[in-house]
Amino acid sequence: MDDERRIEEAMARYLRAADHRDATTMAGVFVDDGLVEIFSYSEGELEPLGQVQGADSIGRAVAGLMSPHPPRGWSHHTTLNPIITVTGETGTFDAQFIVYNVVAHQRPAAGWPAGASGAQGTVTPIETGYMHTTLRQAGGHWKIVKHTIKHDLPYAFPPPAELDL
Amino acid sequence: MDDERRIEEAMARYLRAADHRDATTMAGVFVDDGLVEIFSYSEGELEPLGQVQGADSIGRAVAGLMSPHPPRGWSHHTTLNPIITVTGETGTFDAQFIVYNVVAHQRPAAGWPAGASGAQGTVTPIETGYMHTTLRQAGGHWKIVKHTIKHDLPYAFPPPAELDL
Amino acid sequence: MDDERRIEEAMARYLRAADHRDATTMAGVFVDDGLVEIFSYSEGELEPLGQVQGADSIGRAVAGLMSPHPPRGWSHHTTLNPIITVTGETGTFDAQFIVYNVVAHQRPAAGWPAGASGAQGTVTPIETGYMHTTLRQAGGHWKIVKHTIKHDLPYAFPPPAELDL
Repeated sequence: MDDERRIEEAMARYLRAADHRDATTMAGVFVDDGLVEIFSYSEGELEPLGQVQGADSIGRAVAGLMSPHPPRGWSHHTTLNPIITVTGETGTFDAQFIVYNVVAHQRPAAGWPAGASGAQGTVTPIETGYMHTTLRQAGGHWKIVKHTIKHDLPYAFPPPAELDL
Repeated sequence: MDDERRIEEAMARYLRAADHRDATTMAGVFVDDGLVEIFSYSEGELEPLGQVQGADSIGRAVAGLMSPHPPRGWSHHTTLNPIITVTGETGTFDAQFIVYNVVAHQRPAAGWPAGASGAQGTVTPIETGYMHTTLRQAGGHWKIVKHTIKHDLPYAFPPPAELDL
Repeated sequence: MDDERRIEEAMARYLRAADHRDATTMAGVFVDDGLVEIFSYSEGELEPLGQVQGADSIGRAVAGLMSPHPPRGWSHHTTLNPIITVTGETGTFDAQFIVYNVVAHQRPAAGWPAGASGAQGTVTPIETGYMHTTLRQAGGHWKIVKHTIKHDLPYAFPPPAELDL
């Protein structure tokens, strides 16, 4: 397996951890002093939304700052068409991202209605943008050093603050 | 081309065969006694939806159990962010999946209305989940031994049963 | 980095150039006499929508034939599950594609309303289909020789003509 694929798979584990609100896996894909910084475009200007530093804090943020899945809810965090560079022990990952919100219909007590067919629920793409990530290799493992997320859409924060990593 | 990419391309052929309801191509990506098993989450529980064993049966299922495309309809079966392992002649493919339903508008006899622009129809993501696939290499070709699909959304089966591979 | 990945990254640069309406980058991913030809399915028939020849013309088409992003608008051009071949200096890239239209809500003068949370806007998949691309390597760089786009959905062209590369 070449380094580019190892970097892709580190990012795939990051994305699965975001889907699963899995703090331990999320912390494990960052170096100890790793940094996440999040921006969004609002009226054409790139605005900072927040940042989290430290693998453990980033892991906790997944369980805390991200809103929990609603009942019958799920999410998919995906990246597409990455451009990857590797220079010695340093790598970069530059990709498009799309986040989907998945919400199941509640099955009626009497069962699905006549005519219902296939998957019962809605799949809605809710967030897009670009990621720029720097990684470092140690002992054959690539971990994230700095992860910059740029949302295309402006972001509203109700109290308590919620943030999609 | 390395084995990881060969596995990705075997899966890409599987996905194209599902899009095209192509029984011959679908059968060809499985070993003779290959197994597909399909589950869906319903109220937090993973429920078995069904299974099909044997490459020929799996091919026939694509033409039979899957509902045919409606007039002006199409689908895209996609996977994202795979994690792939290769150990000798055995490989695993673990990915997110999203299925899109595509339905064209019918062109009016008088042509598209004034102001119509771009693609005329709707693209709707309808199914998501995770795939866990085991493959085996023989003669340079990777084929699917066992393909497990876990839908995020519950599934309703009207008679006759329809199943999206 | 192997040739298959280099081809993927040439296509990733093409997609980013389409997102950004970036004529210079777009021209740079094509050979001088490169050809783009675009088709769409309409009532089951594959109809030619148009073609553009020459790297400079293709670059200009991105800035001209494609409609500009609306205020607070963006797009993502993505490909999925490519099948890639390399034979000497020639490569082929065969993939599914999905284009997303992203439109931000306008932030009210008084700020986002109570209860607003997360990304404020809509993400809509609007175009799907298959791409069949031939590339040629020169000096370690893969460039597009012929790029064939087949939209699943029929296409309406208002005056002035607009075309999504």
